[in-house]
Amino acid sequence: MNKFNNINKRVFDVNHLLSKSSLVIQNFGNASSRSNDGFVIKPSGIDLSSSSSHEMVSVDLKGNILNGKLKPSSDEPTHRYIYAKENMVNGIVHTHSKFATAFAQANVPIKNLGTTHSDFSKYNILVTDQLTQDETNNGYELNTGKKILEKLQKNNINILETPGILSIRHGVFAWGVSIEDAFKNAEIIEYIAELNYLTNVINPDSKKIEEYIANKHFNRKNGPNSYYGQ
Amino acid sequence: MNKFNNINKRVFDVNHLLSKSSLVIQNFGNASSRSNDGFVIKPSGIDLSSSSSHEMVSVDLKGNILNGKLKPSSDEPTHRYIYAKENMVNGIVHTHSKFATAFAQANVPIKNLGTTHSDFSKYNILVTDQLTQDETNNGYELNTGKKILEKLQKNNINILETPGILSIRHGVFAWGVSIEDAFKNAEIIEYIAELNYLTNVINPDSKKIEEYIANKHFNRKNGPNSYYGQ
Amino acid sequence: MNKFNNINKRVFDVNHLLSKSSLVIQNFGNASSRSNDGFVIKPSGIDLSSSSSHEMVSVDLKGNILNGKLKPSSDEPTHRYIYAKENMVNGIVHTHSKFATAFAQANVPIKNLGTTHSDFSKYNILVTDQLTQDETNNGYELNTGKKILEKLQKNNINILETPGILSIRHGVFAWGVSIEDAFKNAEIIEYIAELNYLTNVINPDSKKIEEYIANKHFNRKNGPNSYYGQ
Amino acid sequence: MNKFNNINKRVFDVNHLLSKSSLVIQNFGNASSRSNDGFVIKPSGIDLSSSSSHEMVSVDLKGNILNGKLKPSSDEPTHRYIYAKENMVNGIVHTHSKFATAFAQANVPIKNLGTTHSDFSKYNILVTDQLTQDETNNGYELNTGKKILEKLQKNNINILETPGILSIRHGVFAWGVSIEDAFKNAEIIEYIAELNYLTNVINPDSKKIEEYIANKHFNRKNGPNSYYGQ
Repeated sequence: MNKFNNINKRVFDVNHLLSKSSLVIQNFGNASSRSNDGFVIKPSGIDLSSSSSHEMVSVDLKGNILNGKLKPSSDEPTHRYIYAKENMVNGIVHTHSKFATAFAQANVPIKNLGTTHSDFSKYNILVTDQLTQDETNNGYELNTGKKILEKLQKNNINILETPGILSIRHGVFAWGVSIEDAFKNAEIIEYIAELNYLTNVINPDSKKIEEYIANKHFNRKNGPNSYYGQ
Repeated sequence: MNKFNNINKRVFDVNHLLSKSSLVIQNFGNASSRSNDGFVIKPSGIDLSSSSSHEMVSVDLKGNILNGKLKPSSDEPTHRYIYAKENMVNGIVHTHSKFATAFAQANVPIKNLGTTHSDFSKYNILVTDQLTQDETNNGYELNTGKKILEKLQKNNINILETPGILSIRHGVFAWGVSIEDAFKNAEIIEYIAELNYLTNVINPDSKKIEEYIANKHFNRKNGPNSYYGQ
Repeated sequence: MNKFNNINKRVFDVNHLLSKSSLVIQNFGNASSRSNDGFVIKPSGIDLSSSSSHEMVSVDLKGNILNGKLKPSSDEPTHRYIYAKENMVNGIVHTHSKFATAFAQANVPIKNLGTTHSDFSKYNILVTDQLTQDETNNGYELNTGKKILEKLQKNNINILETPGILSIRHGVFAWGVSIEDAFKNAEIIEYIAELNYLTNVINPDSKKIEEYIANKHFNRKNGPNSYYGQ
Repeated sequence: MNKFNNINKRVFDVNHLLSKSSLVIQNFGNASSRSNDGFVIKPSGIDLSSSSSHEMVSVDLKGNILNGKLKPSSDEPTHRYIYAKENMVNGIVHTHSKFATAFAQANVPIKNLGTTHSDFSKYNILVTDQLTQDETNNGYELNTGKKILEKLQKNNINILETPGILSIRHGVFAWGVSIEDAFKNAEIIEYIAELNYLTNVINPDSKKIEEYIANKHFNRKNGPNSYYGQ
């Protein structure tokens, strides 16, 4: 049995969950999963409450539609760029969730201020660099994917060492080893964005967490000798 | 089949949806739709949970009641003024939603700081000018409508290039090509108001979005070659 | 038929509604109604979900229990003082709702900044003066009532010209011509407290609403020629 | 009949309640109760919706597992340290609730600003001192418990005079004479954290409550002559 069995249903389920969650207003959000021959993503602009898993769209890593009668989400090229370049990533979730999007609009990273953040990453959640006018007008959505991986490379962060990134002026791209993990990561990015916001209002001079605490928390949950579980 | 068939039911449904949404407390809100001979609006001060579509009030563009036993909402003249002057507008929704109303009270426009806003408008969401004492005491609700259109004209904005406006000290008037679109626009104005609020707390020097990004987002969703759909 | 018929049920219903609302956490809140021979109030510290209208406590205006096996809420003397002195008031609701309680803790009145507030009062929502150590140690709850009426008198406000008051360091006392109106007033005090909070963060120099707008809104809803109803 | 009868079910129920509450996101939280031979705690990282009371883990005060097939929560040593040293404490609840965690991240105590706080404690809710690198790398979770009791001792606070503490950079540990009381205390710590946050934004110079009011409120609810109940 293949780990991508039943993938259309899983993609539908996570998109459905997303659309019911507080992370998404109207249809601002989408989720995808890698599949055996590319990836599966939500169609463009559908109402998930009257939809089904059969409507999910299957795309190969060059952008050819393999299966599905509907157009894929307009963010499809961003997802595709990440799947093509990062083979550890099997799920991607995009949201405009409130606090995280506000950090993206403000061009301010989500700082690692506590153990909730450290459980998911030792690093800040970064903001991508601004696209140029040319990158915007020609291949905007694909270039959005490029900017994401460029930012990680510049900061020497392996993609699975962070739950996602803030796309400048735009919103969140979260990822994981599965679409379900990507969803949890999108959820936690919003939570730590809100914690960062509140912490800074309480004390504008709040400092980053001590590195040894961050390491302890990240490693007890994600390291080779992990033992964590609340 | 006419596009205003079944309009009483649609007006009732959107008012009902509105009263259940987080945009409205108590009975602070109302929705209307253009009809074949004027427009249909919620009656004044009713409890929607024990009401029905038969109680909606039909009014012509001079303010004569065509149908309905109840008085229309006291905001009826504001709706009427807009329908009379702007024939592309087929739906109007009024709310006192929290963040948007706070911007209206502060007399501060909702700045276009990101792509969520740009998907709906390239422009800031404006605040109307204050009514004079005379405009307040004589025809307050009709003058509220006048102030709305005056503000758009002064800023050279066509009414469908923005999802709505902030009525100073008061709340939101959203509109659209249908009552359902007007509802979505009321919802998004509250969302981008909250995003603006949070962004400014995170970084008080946050700048307006680059114009080429705003154009890209507005046009991919609303332009002649639109292809957008999440 | 007397306007206080069935009053035990109405008191229970509003207390139940209150306990399910966002205005109340745990058992921080209570509601009462005037009755034919005094008033009816929630018993002290009960769980409303497993309670009934038969458990409501009837008290006369001197504090004698007329009916009911349980002790009345410990705030009973505050309610009693108001009923005894203000015969237009037939319902009182007490909450520790978040934004309003924060204004009470900060000793800052809720300023009239917009039409939502003006629909309920032309005035700011005031904060009572601090009780002295003696007033606290001897008859604390009764003195809380005295401080409320003193504050209104000092400011020449008739009790029904304002939906309630902030008890310093403590929370909200709202009132009305019925217990159901007092509940709506408690709800609106929280809403305008939140609007005031947000407005001041957006623009710390936000000014009070123009008096002619406040008058217009208050009078179209509450004046002798009222015509308002959204 | 023993007061710890049926304790597995109570531990499961409170963990279940916690996981459904707004105090917890994903699986960030746990609750435990003292038992006849030690204490009972949630297993590590389980999904409570598909779990049962039979899966709760029983541990003695030296950390030996007495009953249960699963590993206890990784926070087990923190709970154990408190049960071992403080025999009045019969329940402990740990959360990363938003406002309280933000105070912990900011290293700012929750100040006693009003009567809601005073009903639960006369004192501020303290933040523990930072663990050293050595305390972090060797016995992190047990040392977290030590830091909690050290902080109380340094401030001459008996453990039941405060509903809990903020673990620096981390979150809330609340306690009580029962697991149900510990849950209520975790809930109230989040509430007073939010009230503190809002109060300080409204008025950054807000002062601590007058000591005689704090005493009055704490004693009328918790003192030998308590009479409080809303």
